This record gives sequence, structure tokens and C-alpha cells, in this order.
Amino acid sequence: MSGTVYGIGLGPGDPELMTLKAARLIGEAKVIAYPTLAGGESFARSIAAAYIPKGTREIVMDVPMTVDRAPAQAAYDIGANAIRSALDAGEDVVVLCEGDPFFYGSFMYLFARLKRDYAVEVVPGVTSVTTCAAVAGVPMAARNEVVTILPAPELVARMEGGHPMDVLHGADTLVVMKLGRHFARVRAAIETAGLTEEAVYIERASTPHEVVLPLSQAPEKAPYFSMILIVKGADPWL
Amino acid sequence: MSGTVYGIGLGPGDPELMTLKAARLIGEAKVIAYPTLAGGESFARSIAAAYIPKGTREIVMDVPMTVDRAPAQAAYDIGANAIRSALDAGEDVVVLCEGDPFFYGSFMYLFARLKRDYAVEVVPGVTSVTTCAAVAGVPMAARNEVVTILPAPELVARMEGGHPMDVLHGADTLVVMKLGRHFARVRAAIETAGLTEEAVYIERASTPHEVVLPLSQAPEKAPYFSMILIVKGADPWL
Repeated sequence: MSGTVYGIGLGPGDPELMTLKAARLIGEAKVIAYPTLAGGESFARSIAAAYIPKGTREIVMDVPMTVDRAPAQAAYDIGANAIRSALDAGEDVVVLCEGDPFFYGSFMYLFARLKRDYAVEVVPGVTSVTTCAAVAGVPMAARNEVVTILPAPELVARMEGGHPMDVLHGADTLVVMKLGRHFARVRAAIETAGLTEEAVYIERASTPHEVVLPLSQAPEKAPYFSMILIVKGADPWL
Repeated sequence: MSGTVYGIGLGPGDPELMTLKAARLIGEAKVIAYPTLAGGESFARSIAAAYIPKGTREIVMDVPMTVDRAPAQAAYDIGANAIRSALDAGEDVVVLCEGDPFFYGSFMYLFARLKRDYAVEVVPGVTSVTTCAAVAGVPMAARNEVVTILPAPELVARMEGGHPMDVLHGADTLVVMKLGRHFARVRAAIETAGLTEEAVYIERASTPHEVVLPLSQAPEKAPYFSMILIVKGADPWL
């Protein structure tokens, strides 16, 4: 009988924000798999490290960060094939994913390649979004408020495509993720929309390198693992 | 010295989806607090039950479910005062919250009452949103996709106010939460928007009473703890 693939959300970075289920499945794992980006250390593996048993086999997918997606696709193809071999031999494979596997997670690339032929179980994890709200001390949504989550590259693409910036106005709470090299343009869009006052900047939430600042005091450069949280209206019932 | 208030996300229902940190803090708790709705059992307490030490003191806030918000406000006032007494006596208080405390959580009402005078730490939890995606086997957002989360009462209010239904079209992924008595009208709005085909109905995700169905096959009535997940476009890179 084939093994099962577990796509496991590890949460935002603090190992204590892993779920009990993630910790259990990692602790029982004979085979784990995870991506590294362009040869760097794996953030996912570093979150899970204390729970990985000695002797566990590790399938590492080295994903190049290129504009052309073909090399990354090839890396996931190779990784998926290595996982298939383990599954065909009856072994379960635990795939480590920072955050939540189905929320902007790279696990989706493996899921697409394996779901037709194998049993896949996805274990949700704490996302960086609610972690940022927690560490910033900003309740992000109450009662019937509308929340929009918007990756920075998409916001910039809409700005530069001349689209109306409805997306900044249609929700009560706005989360702009994946700032990185788009930070300066995102900041300008938020300023133009008159939302800087309500905006909080958060970097690497729940890790030792966490930064929480009003957007107006944020540094000039932002890493990929950063976001802006804009909560427009306090719930009148609070 | 005053104690600290911990607002602890317990995740969507499966006790194994609690974080390690939540389990540790509950296991160390001398005083816990949680709301019950209209005298019913506390869902939050039921998730945490196995981790609550014997002899822990329990502050129960019985929150009436009335259209007039004043009685609920009064219940949170009484609860906050009981928590204050414990904090003033130097005890920490662990407040149990289903899901995530700052994501449509009732903890926000206590946070508003206590944050000025006491140290408050919020421990994020797994939300029902990513849990629904996980149990439905539907990756909810990839790369630069935009996600909008919309409580059903707000969708219905916009429909009945004659607002354009831009909110159903402006995002790549749409999550309609808190269906309850609004379910029939939400379903009609989704049908009118031509989105029924992509819509999945999920009820009480991760609990023994979990239901996952295409929206077209969903039952006529939905509980409060249910949602519809609409993922419009598969990532072309998957």
C-alpha cells in the first residue's frame, strides 16, 4: 500500500506556534521533504528542527528564484518524483511548509503533482497574517468586517496598469503581504489613499528578528517576510 | 505586580490543531476565562478541555445573544472585572478563544477593556478559513492572488442596500463566513454572480461533525460555523 503525503503548516516562525498535530507528525516521520530557495537554508526546516527525529531521511528541493518559472517547476518535478518513490515503497512523507500549506504556500506545487495518485492530508497552520495582528496588538477583524489580503506585486501591477485603487477602499481591513522590493511603491500607494495613519508595518513576526512599527516609521527596505496591516475602523461595539 | 492576560487562539475545533504554546499556557494556568453563548456549552472550553489542569479556577462569561448589544456588553464588563481582580492579585489569566483571538474573536471585547491597564499577550491560532481549505482539498491562494473574507451578514446587507456586488468579483478567492440564517440569500447571490460551480460548502471543519460538499449539493440550512470557499482561478503555474 502506498504511503500518505502530509502537507504540514508550521506557522509563522516561532516553533511554539506549530500545532500539536504538526509536532506529532514530524516526530513520527521517517521521511520529510522541504524546499530551499536558491541554495539557502530552509526556513521551514529551521522551524521544525527540534522535532525531526535522528535518522529521518530528508528530501530537499532546491528551488531557483528566477523570473522564468521553468527551473522552479523542474525542481518541484524532481522533488515530487523523489516523494513518489518513497510513497510507492509504502513510506509516509511529511512535507514541511512555513505558515499554512494552502495559503500562499509552496506545498501547492507538490499537491498539484501528487493529488491524483496518492492520499494527501493537509494540516493547516497559523498564518503570518493573524500573527502580525497579534504581535502588533491590533484586532484585525470583528463582527461583520470585510478583510482583503493583497500581495504587494499585485497591488503594484494594478497601480502601474492604471487600474482604480478600489482594492484599497473596498475592505474594512487590508493586509498587504510580500513587500520585499515592492515596498516603496506600496508605501506610496497607501499614502496616496490616505491610509498611512492606520497602517502598521510588521517584519518576521514571532521570530527573534521581529519588527513592529507604525508604517510612517518603517525602515526604507523591507524583506519578503513582511507585511502592512491596515485596520480602518474600530468596531463601535468594542 | 499584576498578572498578564493571555488571549489564546485554540484553532478551529480539533484539539490537535491547538498550538504547542496554547497547550503549554493552558496546562500552566491557575485561572482561565471564556464566554458561553446564551448559557450553552463553551466551544472554546471543549477544545481545550484535556489540557485544563484540575483545580484551575474558571471565569465564565455568559453572553446573551440578543439584537440589542447592551446585555452582551454588560456580560463582558462583568467578565473583565472578574479578570481584573485576578490580575490585581498577581495571577495570570488565560482567556480561551476558538480560532484566532484577533480574527472575528470575542477576545477583542476583553482586550478593549483590559489593554490600557494590564500586560496582554495574544497567541495566534489556526483559523477556520485555512482549515476549510485544507479539509476541502482546495489550495486557497497562490503567488499574487487576492483573497477577500466576507461575513455573510455584510454580503446580505450590501445586496439589500442595492450596492453593486463588486465584492464578489474583485478577488481571486472569496471566503463567505458565518452563514447561519443568511445562507439562502448568500447562495442566491453566488448563483447570480455565476460562481456556484467553483463554490465549496464547509461546516464545522476539523470537528467530528465536519461537512464538505459542493455548494450545489449543500443542505438547505447552515449553522453559524460554516463557510463557502470560492477559488476562481487555478494558478497557471501549478
